[in-house]
Amino acid sequence: MTSLYSMVQNYRMILSYDGTDFHGWQRQLNKRTVQDTIEKALFKITKNKVAVIGAGRTDKGVHALAQVANFKTTLILKEEEFTRALNSTLPNDIRVISMEKVALDFHAREMALSKVYQYRIFNSPLITPFLMRYVLHWSAPLDLEKMKKAAELFIREDDFSGFSSNRFLNPVRRVTESKVEKRGDEIIYTIEANGFLRYMARTIVGTLLEIGRGKAEPEIIEEIFRKKERHLAGPTAPARGLCLIKVKY
Amino acid sequence: MTSLYSMVQNYRMILSYDGTDFHGWQRQLNKRTVQDTIEKALFKITKNKVAVIGAGRTDKGVHALAQVANFKTTLILKEEEFTRALNSTLPNDIRVISMEKVALDFHAREMALSKVYQYRIFNSPLITPFLMRYVLHWSAPLDLEKMKKAAELFIREDDFSGFSSNRFLNPVRRVTESKVEKRGDEIIYTIEANGFLRYMARTIVGTLLEIGRGKAEPEIIEEIFRKKERHLAGPTAPARGLCLIKVKY
Repeated sequence: MTSLYSMVQNYRMILSYDGTDFHGWQRQLNKRTVQDTIEKALFKITKNKVAVIGAGRTDKGVHALAQVANFKTTLILKEEEFTRALNSTLPNDIRVISMEKVALDFHAREMALSKVYQYRIFNSPLITPFLMRYVLHWSAPLDLEKMKKAAELFIREDDFSGFSSNRFLNPVRRVTESKVEKRGDEIIYTIEANGFLRYMARTIVGTLLEIGRGKAEPEIIEEIFRKKERHLAGPTAPARGLCLIKVKY
Repeated sequence: MTSLYSMVQNYRMILSYDGTDFHGWQRQLNKRTVQDTIEKALFKITKNKVAVIGAGRTDKGVHALAQVANFKTTLILKEEEFTRALNSTLPNDIRVISMEKVALDFHAREMALSKVYQYRIFNSPLITPFLMRYVLHWSAPLDLEKMKKAAELFIREDDFSGFSSNRFLNPVRRVTESKVEKRGDEIIYTIEANGFLRYMARTIVGTLLEIGRGKAEPEIIEEIFRKKERHLAGPTAPARGLCLIKVKY
């Protein structure tokens, strides 16, 4: 006799979504969230309640190029068939890029070693309307060299409380990549860390912008790490420029 | 004494807009249209009712990379100042690319010699959600060579009634460019004409798709020109793939 347990399959999927019209990843009562939208699609396909676990709980308006998520179901389908079924059930602003059957103990969030986010700043007086959902438009000049230098100061294992609006039991995170690059009209900020405090990536970007526009010096960063006071950092940059681009395991 | 007339200035502007959330160019009661949105912004700036004339009256959901429009006002501002004032008043999905003072007799629509539209077909099983507003997603294979050959048959001065859902007093248009190209995962259709009947570009695309998927042969095009029967042509392709890319004077 096959046990019920053995019939359960764990699926890992890579997802892209345009976060503009979602209240973030996490399920919330009466709000359109990514998790909820995927769970509803899975319910239609499997006829069962399925809980989806995402690696990164992206905030309202934040995008994902390659979010990783997993869920368990007794419905056994070929990966390509399941992908096709999901993509034809999901709305256009979420796409399943790929699916894979994985070991039952795989957990998208707990097993993630690091996540990579990118923030796009469109730094030119004029922006095309076709990018407005995906970038922060910044018309005034920015001091790229200062921003580059400042970005490097975030590569450390430290208490990031000063760059978050919430308080955490363990506010220590390890940032392994933090860099500013120019690509055409855009300034791209990339950050990789083993975890992110709430609004951490966007507060770092807000601080880099203060430095870029000459309102603060890179030295402010050391001061914020020392004093851990949120008000010393720059404003939280808008969600639309941020995108989860990779989850590493 | 300066006459009132001499104080009026005619401005020509180049506009980009994401047509997704507009009911097309033309003013309509209780609908969000591009013309209406610009006129409201101009009212805020000039404190006067201003009528904006667009070169192409794009349909609901159709985009513009470079629409040309003109309007007259007694408010005299430097072009850059006026552009800045408009861009800070307009919503994000319309951007004024440039403005220029022009002769009083310039009329954006009547003086346009031709308009160029492009239609984007994303021809791959998987699409990123970041393109969904700007392309038609077509998963199945398409016969590119047949589509290329068929596209050339539209280069002619002829009665295009068979490719429009409406009847026109003068349904003759001159198409000077009509070509299909492959760019990465996309199939791009470009059409230039001295004028377009209602839904003409999208019906041509719908017909090219029927040919590309093997449901019709390029010869059908000659038959449609001969019989002028709309039902022989393909379905009207969705608005989101279409973009007005240039107006020539």
